[in-house]
Amino acid sequence: MPRVEIIAVGTELLLGQLVDTNSPFIASRLAQAGVDVYATHAVGDNRARIAAAIDASLSRADGVVTSGGLGPTVDDLTKEAVCDALEVRCVPHAPTLARMEAFFASIGRPMRENNRKQADIPVGSVVLENARGTAPGFIAVRADGKFVACMPGVPHEMRPMLDEHLIPYLRQRYGSLPGVVTRVLHVTGLGESEIDHRIDDLFRSAENPKIAILAHAGSCDVKIMAKAPAREQADAMIAPLEEELRARLRGHVFGADGETLAERALALLRERGWRLATAESCTGGRIAAALTAVAGASDVFAGGVVAYENAAKSALLGVDRATLAAHGAVSEEAARAMARGARERFSAVAALAATGVAGPSGGSDEKPVGLVWLAVVTPRGERSVRLQLPGGREEVQARAAQASLSLLWGIMQDREASPQPS
Amino acid sequence: MPRVEIIAVGTELLLGQLVDTNSPFIASRLAQAGVDVYATHAVGDNRARIAAAIDASLSRADGVVTSGGLGPTVDDLTKEAVCDALEVRCVPHAPTLARMEAFFASIGRPMRENNRKQADIPVGSVVLENARGTAPGFIAVRADGKFVACMPGVPHEMRPMLDEHLIPYLRQRYGSLPGVVTRVLHVTGLGESEIDHRIDDLFRSAENPKIAILAHAGSCDVKIMAKAPAREQADAMIAPLEEELRARLRGHVFGADGETLAERALALLRERGWRLATAESCTGGRIAAALTAVAGASDVFAGGVVAYENAAKSALLGVDRATLAAHGAVSEEAARAMARGARERFSAVAALAATGVAGPSGGSDEKPVGLVWLAVVTPRGERSVRLQLPGGREEVQARAAQASLSLLWGIMQDREASPQPS
Repeated sequence: MPRVEIIAVGTELLLGQLVDTNSPFIASRLAQAGVDVYATHAVGDNRARIAAAIDASLSRADGVVTSGGLGPTVDDLTKEAVCDALEVRCVPHAPTLARMEAFFASIGRPMRENNRKQADIPVGSVVLENARGTAPGFIAVRADGKFVACMPGVPHEMRPMLDEHLIPYLRQRYGSLPGVVTRVLHVTGLGESEIDHRIDDLFRSAENPKIAILAHAGSCDVKIMAKAPAREQADAMIAPLEEELRARLRGHVFGADGETLAERALALLRERGWRLATAESCTGGRIAAALTAVAGASDVFAGGVVAYENAAKSALLGVDRATLAAHGAVSEEAARAMARGARERFSAVAALAATGVAGPSGGSDEKPVGLVWLAVVTPRGERSVRLQLPGGREEVQARAAQASLSLLWGIMQDREASPQPS
Repeated sequence: MPRVEIIAVGTELLLGQLVDTNSPFIASRLAQAGVDVYATHAVGDNRARIAAAIDASLSRADGVVTSGGLGPTVDDLTKEAVCDALEVRCVPHAPTLARMEAFFASIGRPMRENNRKQADIPVGSVVLENARGTAPGFIAVRADGKFVACMPGVPHEMRPMLDEHLIPYLRQRYGSLPGVVTRVLHVTGLGESEIDHRIDDLFRSAENPKIAILAHAGSCDVKIMAKAPAREQADAMIAPLEEELRARLRGHVFGADGETLAERALALLRERGWRLATAESCTGGRIAAALTAVAGASDVFAGGVVAYENAAKSALLGVDRATLAAHGAVSEEAARAMARGARERFSAVAALAATGVAGPSGGSDEKPVGLVWLAVVTPRGERSVRLQLPGGREEVQARAAQASLSLLWGIMQDREASPQPS
């Protein structure tokens, strides 16, 4: 199994002004391709330090993958550092130069010397084409066969270069290696400890595939990671464990591999031909935003009202002022009335409402910060849920929105489940 | 100036399953304290590799700061690795052990051997108290005076430990050093290249304070970074440059140091006593969500309608069906009618509307994906703006929401400005 180290280049990383998301992205792709990532590093825009870091990494690993420092400015020094570390020189790469000249001609701008410099690559390197920008990447190979692969730091240039050029190069070079394939099950309505309790035996015994639980605000991920020489083998190893996990967590696994609660809830609504409306107070538009983040939401989602003040709850949702006066805006009665009002005003089949105390102020002994009432009205009847959510304003708002979608999804699943704060 | 390297410990970092946000946080705090961060690294949960990484860092730097690997499980090996690297042994720290025993007694749970292990620290270390968890941090000092400071990986435990204990220790040890103080100006309505053009001379000549421009979706940050022995000196160095930059970017600097457009727009509305309502189509609740993210928004923000389908635009906002039929839902007329409708229905003083084609489908030659119409209605009249935004669905939605707040802020500023996609 080849061993690789990753180096991110950029002084802003060492000042903490930028979070390095390139290295985790590269690491996950290398893991999938069966390449062992031994360590990652970040170094500043300093030629000698970059060269020293490459040198140190190559003393431990079979190769180095870098991101950043290939731009046209005087701060971009990765290429020079590679030349220093590998004791080679840079030469113009004719096809790249031609492509860049054509590009600058097409936009009617002169090509400057610092752009021309971007077409230089270490002599003998393999060029990694950059379909989204000017600077190409490259793979330089040392006399002993160890390699240095350099890519730009801009994520939308780096990512396709990695997937389309570097990973295929590594697969060709090292053959079909046991890579790590990950399957993520998204779970709602169960806390981390309850999930742990239900799958404890699988969790402890599994080595390959391996299981991991990761908690988020309002949901949990259960990851299954399998290491196998080919994708198909990994999938076959994952399948029976996934089936067992789904059985243990029945009614709570809403999706897999990045699917959202909003996406799944909309899909279930679409199956039944039910149109949805929302009525939001404390969530302030977050439920509607989550639903409209899904492409094609418009055929199922009619719209919503953000009734932030009481007058709006009455004027736009028809909530009786007497209800608000008797029970308060944060109450089961208000939540149900809001849902009914949204259903009616939007002529929808189903409606979802959330009202609560997001904080930091506005709480009382009786109705503390974090108290949220949710209600769902469908042709099958009404359901409401009281939650006491932890965290600050932002967290309460996010968790309440997530819980409301969880409640809706649960009802559309046709099961008796209520959302749990987790 | 002392030189430090940062090491993040955790195999999940090398699998790309977790983005390391601890190292940038530590780096920024060290920069402020005048400590030079030479490099950062991530290593897996492997005792020998962690020890080797510490050893390598100490060969280049005066100290190492680590995060992660202090928990109670068999995978937590940072402490053992420090002992190996520094050739010392671990001993129980009596006050920590007593505190942990009291904690477990208070929650009525037995304290297990693996928790007891957490009270061990390398002999002779300075203990860094953990106010939010069980594992203490520590600073171990090698015979040559170089140090290794270890903190837990959980951010809400690590951050206060860093601020309250480690940084004060370093300040005491190294005295008052020239630290980096950063002031960030948030700019809207000007693209990166226009900002660069306006401040080019300052940008090129400034060394200390130094200037950097960072583009986001819909806004730009102009950073001023000053290095000085004390906060007051840095502030004094920043002040004249900030004044000059604000003059050059007059009417476009909406806030500083993390203030949001929503926050600033709400503040201007509050000053005038104007209540706001929103009418959203393509932004799907994102404008309302941005406004309600601000604590205390309720005294200025009445609420909004997410009128995702045409029927809702008519039913809830009173938009004339003839207007929609004649001009379409994505049109200047529809945007203005939506804003007028929201203003009326919520009995608000001002209203903001957005309607557009978020994509990926629904675009046409005449109205392509990314076309967005914004409208603002206030007692001073109506304003509308047509935008053609780049990017996918998520980016169009986010940029449109940002641009609408920019338009509102600009109008509340009492100036002639229109939002620019940037």
